[in-house]
Amino acid sequence: MIQPRFITFEGIDGSGKSTQARRLADYLRAQGADVILTREPGGSPGAEEIRQLLLTGDTDRWSAETEILLFTAARRDHLEKTILPALADDKTVVSDRFADSTRVYQGATRGDLRAKVDALHSLMIGREPDLTFIIDMDPATALQRGLARKSGEDRFEDFGLPFQETLRHGFLALAHADPARCVLIDGNRTMDQIASDVAAHL
Amino acid sequence: MIQPRFITFEGIDGSGKSTQARRLADYLRAQGADVILTREPGGSPGAEEIRQLLLTGDTDRWSAETEILLFTAARRDHLEKTILPALADDKTVVSDRFADSTRVYQGATRGDLRAKVDALHSLMIGREPDLTFIIDMDPATALQRGLARKSGEDRFEDFGLPFQETLRHGFLALAHADPARCVLIDGNRTMDQIASDVAAHL
Repeated sequence: MIQPRFITFEGIDGSGKSTQARRLADYLRAQGADVILTREPGGSPGAEEIRQLLLTGDTDRWSAETEILLFTAARRDHLEKTILPALADDKTVVSDRFADSTRVYQGATRGDLRAKVDALHSLMIGREPDLTFIIDMDPATALQRGLARKSGEDRFEDFGLPFQETLRHGFLALAHADPARCVLIDGNRTMDQIASDVAAHL
Repeated sequence: MIQPRFITFEGIDGSGKSTQARRLADYLRAQGADVILTREPGGSPGAEEIRQLLLTGDTDRWSAETEILLFTAARRDHLEKTILPALADDKTVVSDRFADSTRVYQGATRGDLRAKVDALHSLMIGREPDLTFIIDMDPATALQRGLARKSGEDRFEDFGLPFQETLRHGFLALAHADPARCVLIDGNRTMDQIASDVAAHL
């Protein structure tokens, strides 16, 4: 098996995926790997500027269509300026979120957008991670965690528990649809248990 | 004939299209029409913010692919927030640039992008103007005008005369390809002569 070098973490807000992305990066570095830890939206100077447009201001500042264009613009910049150069340089890239988040969040907001998100991805991004960890956990617990650290950038927590349930099912469906790439991780455990489980897959 | 209500002006920088857009708006208002004069990139508060990302900073700040995503995001916002509401309200919309500019400028930068620009337009915009005036003029004169008023936002004038020639041919090809929508206007005349010519088409 070729060692996966572009690895992403996905899941609902509060699922612990950012912590697990950091833990995996630390683990791989301890093994001697050269690792870049990055995140979306953002992950390159240009994409961080687009992130500011996306995550500040009113929730209805952009329509869903404009939003997916901005997410895709930020992703293209992140891919070109951060991810691809690191991979070309034999580094491992661990990203907290990538295209799956747009698929699931926008699809949960309005079902008819999913086809547009996929078409935009094929047209303008065209790259999938080698391996994706989907951290699955109880939406009520995740929502509580998310609200506890509310930073002004959390836009989806305001939508409440039913929306979190929809998101969870969206991520489960992704894992089911692409088992060659996606590994489902039970997030209802301690951080250490989850980190060991993730590391065991590499 | 149904009176066209979404009218755009296109052409190379320095061709006088902004002046002619304003003159046509004034003319139509004098005839009693309710007219919105707008422009791209920009034309709505959100699109103006995206414009800032596009037109400031280094010329190579964004790749051509990221740039067309940002232009399309700005256009979608402009369409939703300014153009469509005005049309729904029985107003006439005159815009200084619209999708044709992206087609011609990005196509001139890298020929293989034209197909991506068209696919993005179909997917995320899907609307053409009722009538487009393409102001055609000698690229050397236009370039001189453009350089004379250099504002820090002019990114393409730096590419010099051969690039302006390529742009001119791109606009001529558009006019040729869609004669039902595009009217070619000879811009090598006085502003008054051009304005009369434009008005005569309405």
